Amino acid sequence: MTVILSLDIGGANTKYALLKKERGEERLITHGSIYFPFWQKNKEYPKLLRQIRTTIETNFGEITKVVFVTTAELADCFTTKKEGIKAISDYMLEVFADKEPEILDFAGKFIPAENATDCWEQVAATNWYASAMFLGSRYSNAILLDIGSTTTDIIPIHNRKVVAQGRTDLERLATSELVYTGLLRTNVIAILSQVKIDEKITRLSSELFATTADVYLLLDKISPKEFFVETADGKPFTKEHAKARLARVVCADTNQLTEEEILGIARQVLTEQYKIIRNALGKVRKRYQKNFRCEPTIVLIGAGATAIGLPVLNQLKIKNWLIAKEELAEEALNCFSAYALGMLAIQINTPKKKGK
Amino acid sequence: MTVILSLDIGGANTKYALLKKERGEERLITHGSIYFPFWQKNKEYPKLLRQIRTTIETNFGEITKVVFVTTAELADCFTTKKEGIKAISDYMLEVFADKEPEILDFAGKFIPAENATDCWEQVAATNWYASAMFLGSRYSNAILLDIGSTTTDIIPIHNRKVVAQGRTDLERLATSELVYTGLLRTNVIAILSQVKIDEKITRLSSELFATTADVYLLLDKISPKEFFVETADGKPFTKEHAKARLARVVCADTNQLTEEEILGIARQVLTEQYKIIRNALGKVRKRYQKNFRCEPTIVLIGAGATAIGLPVLNQLKIKNWLIAKEELAEEALNCFSAYALGMLAIQINTPKKKGK
Repeated sequence: MTVILSLDIGGANTKYALLKKERGEERLITHGSIYFPFWQKNKEYPKLLRQIRTTIETNFGEITKVVFVTTAELADCFTTKKEGIKAISDYMLEVFADKEPEILDFAGKFIPAENATDCWEQVAATNWYASAMFLGSRYSNAILLDIGSTTTDIIPIHNRKVVAQGRTDLERLATSELVYTGLLRTNVIAILSQVKIDEKITRLSSELFATTADVYLLLDKISPKEFFVETADGKPFTKEHAKARLARVVCADTNQLTEEEILGIARQVLTEQYKIIRNALGKVRKRYQKNFRCEPTIVLIGAGATAIGLPVLNQLKIKNWLIAKEELAEEALNCFSAYALGMLAIQINTPKKKGK
Repeated sequence: MTVILSLDIGGANTKYALLKKERGEERLITHGSIYFPFWQKNKEYPKLLRQIRTTIETNFGEITKVVFVTTAELADCFTTKKEGIKAISDYMLEVFADKEPEILDFAGKFIPAENATDCWEQVAATNWYASAMFLGSRYSNAILLDIGSTTTDIIPIHNRKVVAQGRTDLERLATSELVYTGLLRTNVIAILSQVKIDEKITRLSSELFATTADVYLLLDKISPKEFFVETADGKPFTKEHAKARLARVVCADTNQLTEEEILGIARQVLTEQYKIIRNALGKVRKRYQKNFRCEPTIVLIGAGATAIGLPVLNQLKIKNWLIAKEELAEEALNCFSAYALGMLAIQINTPKKKGK
């Protein structure tokens, strides 16, 4: 029996999954996502890891192995990514030394946490790689469109292999395989610099006054129950407060703008975010068609699959797609990167012969 | 003798000036700017006001009168501006009740703090009005270009009167008389959505990773000694850290980008911010020429007058300008809005006859 704990340590959220392989079958035992903003309290991270460990061991018994990926090295508490990778690996070793924690590199290999700092460039931000490798084993010719709370990954898969052109985040931004825009956490000003209100072009404020979560909530594309969201003003994630937040992006309030005007701003943000993702997907798809002379299936996944992914595919008139929700269990989707990572690890770590 | 304490209460900075009128002559006695982020600790504001009061009374004796303007009602600790105006007026009354504090409205009248909430729309965000009224008394036909740390005001003055088309912040954004962009605090993503690196178009991250202060510091347009700046990562305001912050906007670090590449990003941000301000000034100036059939003098003021204002005027080939630094005392410029407000108040509050 192999019991794998896998962690996807993001700058804002830590996702984890516990997988068990028994009698040739993998099962997801438990999973979760915990809001932990590295840029605010980085040094308290071992405490969180210890909590996760205690909860799991108390409820589900012994863990065989721990694996992880991270994007938190980009958090601005770390001056360089190397410093971030070192800190995060040290935290993992502090809490899980006896489980020999390993981090995935972007060649698909697991590297002992002790050695992570030496190859920081290979192990930084490989969460997308775990997801893509796992899905690659299921879909032979596909583009994975993973729209998360913060970022969107667009990963080409050919003959079951990840054929992304970018490896580091920087390369991935330049190839449109990473778009730093998402369903919940994106500052509205990162999408639009101006909106039309009452036919007048109005430039936006440059503060963090509202996020895409407010936009999709007001347009009934997501419900506050579905998501835990840290709002821009720290006030509750309700429509009333979302309206106040969105009015503020043009230095106004709910006394100065009508509801219809505020919804108008929301619609313009949505339209533009669709366009940003549509353009990026269009580029990756065009390259795919040119390089491989075949039509990839678009595999939708992530928190924004329905609210953003589907309308974008519709706009592009793409017929050849599937939404991973219908293919994978719901609980695996809620922590997909951690789940995929765990599945990769379980395949590697399963003893070849029973009893050994 | 009249001794006026005037305050410009911004969301991030509180500026104050103490002016004395004696034997027909006004003098600036002291002034200052204190970083106080309302969105973080709003309720501690009376403590700050008490500190200011104690320091001034200890060092300079009795105050005759207190006046104020504010833009802090837009801070997102307040759900509506009315709520913000009420809170700020209450704080002023808590500390300065005996000095009968008054707030400027956008018709140029002073309103007792007790009544401010009832006319919140008239008294919200009138700091620009104080500056413009004061300068209007000196320059008969002008456009005031006030480039601050956070925002830029572009105010037309005709026949010594403020002839702005917008009154509220919302109207002022729509008329380009307010541009929410500044020398120090502007998030780089509010200026640019993509940059060219090594000839590749690279979209930016949507976090608050770097601000315009980093850009102008790296390009030697400002020095760290000149300005107190809260940086995006909370780390020191040095070139080394500014490089790390700016690299992060494309999800990179100083190991992944050369110094020249990072400076290249800075130059692209600067070029675009110049363009934003140039376009806004161009619009206001065109309207001015059309409405009044005369050429206004552009009066430059604010923290960004030299680093941004001068190059923008140069790009527009405007010859008819002056930099207020050469006209007004340096110390008046450092807290100009508070100084201008105090000057307005001193003119109104000076006893008509001596001894009364």
